[in-house]
Amino acid sequence: MLTVPPLAPGLTTDLIAGNKILYHFDIVDAFGHISVRHDADPNVYVMARHLAPGLVTADDLVPFDLDSNPLIETSHRFYSERYIHGEIYKVRPDVQSVVHCHAPPLIPFGITKAKLLPVYHMSAFLGTGPNVFEIRETGGMTNMLVRTAPLGAALAKVLGADTTVLMRGHGATMVGSSIREAVYRAVYAAQNAAIELQALQLGNGEVTFLDPQEAELYDRYSGEVAHRPWNMWLREVGLA
Amino acid sequence: MLTVPPLAPGLTTDLIAGNKILYHFDIVDAFGHISVRHDADPNVYVMARHLAPGLVTADDLVPFDLDSNPLIETSHRFYSERYIHGEIYKVRPDVQSVVHCHAPPLIPFGITKAKLLPVYHMSAFLGTGPNVFEIRETGGMTNMLVRTAPLGAALAKVLGADTTVLMRGHGATMVGSSIREAVYRAVYAAQNAAIELQALQLGNGEVTFLDPQEAELYDRYSGEVAHRPWNMWLREVGLA
Amino acid sequence: MLTVPPLAPGLTTDLIAGNKILYHFDIVDAFGHISVRHDADPNVYVMARHLAPGLVTADDLVPFDLDSNPLIETSHRFYSERYIHGEIYKVRPDVQSVVHCHAPPLIPFGITKAKLLPVYHMSAFLGTGPNVFEIRETGGMTNMLVRTAPLGAALAKVLGADTTVLMRGHGATMVGSSIREAVYRAVYAAQNAAIELQALQLGNGEVTFLDPQEAELYDRYSGEVAHRPWNMWLREVGLA
Amino acid sequence: MLTVPPLAPGLTTDLIAGNKILYHFDIVDAFGHISVRHDADPNVYVMARHLAPGLVTADDLVPFDLDSNPLIETSHRFYSERYIHGEIYKVRPDVQSVVHCHAPPLIPFGITKAKLLPVYHMSAFLGTGPNVFEIRETGGMTNMLVRTAPLGAALAKVLGADTTVLMRGHGATMVGSSIREAVYRAVYAAQNAAIELQALQLGNGEVTFLDPQEAELYDRYSGEVAHRPWNMWLREVGLA
Repeated sequence: MLTVPPLAPGLTTDLIAGNKILYHFDIVDAFGHISVRHDADPNVYVMARHLAPGLVTADDLVPFDLDSNPLIETSHRFYSERYIHGEIYKVRPDVQSVVHCHAPPLIPFGITKAKLLPVYHMSAFLGTGPNVFEIRETGGMTNMLVRTAPLGAALAKVLGADTTVLMRGHGATMVGSSIREAVYRAVYAAQNAAIELQALQLGNGEVTFLDPQEAELYDRYSGEVAHRPWNMWLREVGLA
Repeated sequence: MLTVPPLAPGLTTDLIAGNKILYHFDIVDAFGHISVRHDADPNVYVMARHLAPGLVTADDLVPFDLDSNPLIETSHRFYSERYIHGEIYKVRPDVQSVVHCHAPPLIPFGITKAKLLPVYHMSAFLGTGPNVFEIRETGGMTNMLVRTAPLGAALAKVLGADTTVLMRGHGATMVGSSIREAVYRAVYAAQNAAIELQALQLGNGEVTFLDPQEAELYDRYSGEVAHRPWNMWLREVGLA
Repeated sequence: MLTVPPLAPGLTTDLIAGNKILYHFDIVDAFGHISVRHDADPNVYVMARHLAPGLVTADDLVPFDLDSNPLIETSHRFYSERYIHGEIYKVRPDVQSVVHCHAPPLIPFGITKAKLLPVYHMSAFLGTGPNVFEIRETGGMTNMLVRTAPLGAALAKVLGADTTVLMRGHGATMVGSSIREAVYRAVYAAQNAAIELQALQLGNGEVTFLDPQEAELYDRYSGEVAHRPWNMWLREVGLA
Repeated sequence: MLTVPPLAPGLTTDLIAGNKILYHFDIVDAFGHISVRHDADPNVYVMARHLAPGLVTADDLVPFDLDSNPLIETSHRFYSERYIHGEIYKVRPDVQSVVHCHAPPLIPFGITKAKLLPVYHMSAFLGTGPNVFEIRETGGMTNMLVRTAPLGAALAKVLGADTTVLMRGHGATMVGSSIREAVYRAVYAAQNAAIELQALQLGNGEVTFLDPQEAELYDRYSGEVAHRPWNMWLREVGLA
């Protein structure tokens, strides 16, 4: 238990900032969470204890193994849905950070047949559109929460190799190769959803989305695009 | 009159916070009110005098009997619609707190045939959808206000055993087993309404709402879910 | 010229507050204006010089006669549309305050066939719905501005005995028996417009508006309703 | 290189303010940019280095020639899309300032057949509606960015003599005879887009837009309209 080394300082800083930025942009409210894979051990991820994201400090960070067991002793509760994180880290070695949220603009795309598709380059990472996780297929009638390893694994499977997965009647989960990229994707997935709804209304359903090739070209070009807004966002949340 | 004991300090604090939180989230504006059943006497409820919720302090709290008569002498005016509160407390011993509001996203669901249904787990308490109170059925042509005991009783009857009742051309009323739960329900009922309108537009009327069983399972699981955001919300309104 | 007595201090305070409140609620932006009839002379009204409402101070207030001529000598410019105010004061002795604005939610109701009707009691003053002023009927092809007395008189005629008049491709004008009432009406007319658009979408055009009798009963009951939120709004704009 | 004289102090101040105002009104987020033609040399324009607009200071301003080559030596990166600016300055001697943005309300008008048209006088500069730049026509499958001179020239051609050009799957570009006018146009183009979407929904597609003659009359009258809100906006962003 006590063998978990400390997270690299830059990751701790980014993880706390990520919590605050997601809250600032209404991606999470008092619910939702963001985690990071441990830089010193790929079989460990770090996430806040059961707490509103906007209140998270360094003291609230807890390391978990990939089965989502806490690796420190504490009397605190943990997010019941931490299996979302652990099960994705298990099958996606490329993923270094996971965001789970209930962002309002994304909810309609999980409960209708409309497909979330990129309306502009800023959300090119949406590619040909995320899948929707239907918890009933794995769990039947549930309380909607991904609070077991099998439910987490089922979600990870629907995510596949993608950046984003929508969750019916629940929210969405985004991944990234860094905290900043996962946060960027969460912010712009929600932004895209809000714009897409308007575009579909304006065009009576006829909308020119990014061509998959355009989306791929932008994504390839803009490897570090997710890092660009970070300094601005730090200032927004009072951390710069 | 002078025999009313003071409200438990925690309830006073929560009641004032509830007023400010409802204002912060645009559930109430300068109108609307929240009350709590007295912890020392179930036949008494406590609510602010006639005042904008955002301005309420401990000095503004007034005890009322369940006929909505004030139990202290004061020169202040009272909310003309306090009968909403008293009549609900009469028939719903499980209810400890009542919110009445004109939250904009809820108004359309009171004046159309669309049904307010839970789009996600956060608003599972909406269950199979709240009833709509049509004041004309009891009062004929009125000024729309529930400012008599019979109108309050009629509203309480339409509420029934539910958590929420919509009011045609007026607003909505939510109840809870605590101030925090009533506030939670008000916040997420409005959030649900905003999302549902978008989902109906996006899906051309075809939306997968929570199954009633899913809603019930979440509600049962998450007894204390309404308490989770409280610390975050206290900070939002400058009380923590 | 120098015979104009000072405005009653309460009116000066309210007029400055009204400017700031209208700006706070996005009823006016850097454009739009509010005036008050002079308490000492019904043939004089007072309004800011040509200035963004959010910047108005007591030093910026200018008295005008009902032909909208300034009654003090100054090198400052005036709002080119002050005729809206003067011409309404001429024909509506009951009106003590006028607001002119370009509030975004109201614009669609001036350029479509949809009628602005009260969705709830808060906007009962909308009654059976405001008329729409079509400047082409009086002015033909213009720059859209009501910048002559005849155009102002034409607008006042379309307003008639009502509380509100919409202006095609331009905005709206509200009147009140006090500054507070005119501000209240501007705030809730815009709020009503935003809600009504959503209700029409939700109900596919079928919406139960307030019955004209309900609207009238509320309006009669709530003579001073417009004064209720004032203290709250003063605090919002830092004046209390 | 070192022969570029300093920008007039007023222009430096306005350029920094313009960056902050565009950010304040959500016209730009951490992306987008504004430039000004140099007052001392029409073949030079000045723009921030690669930086979020909200963070720009005087030290970040860089002069570029009209081929968009930087005229100072620096280790900083530049906006990859600076060719938007340079190529427009080349062919539009009347243009003194250019804004490029991804304002959300404008995106739907670039990816549907709906035309952006003026709903009120405030956006009369939209005239008979901006063209839409389809990058595929010039560049085929691209990463969507205007990051070469030929792509910039193609955009400038689609802009033509207009004030605004929409960019499919990307955003929009506005020009002005001053920084203040370009900023004004960006703010009200986005405002117009948001209102127009609502009007089209409210009127089921039937909307009375400004007549082209009305738009022209307002534009001619209000040469300096763009300067009116500036003092208000400076205060909004903490610069006055």
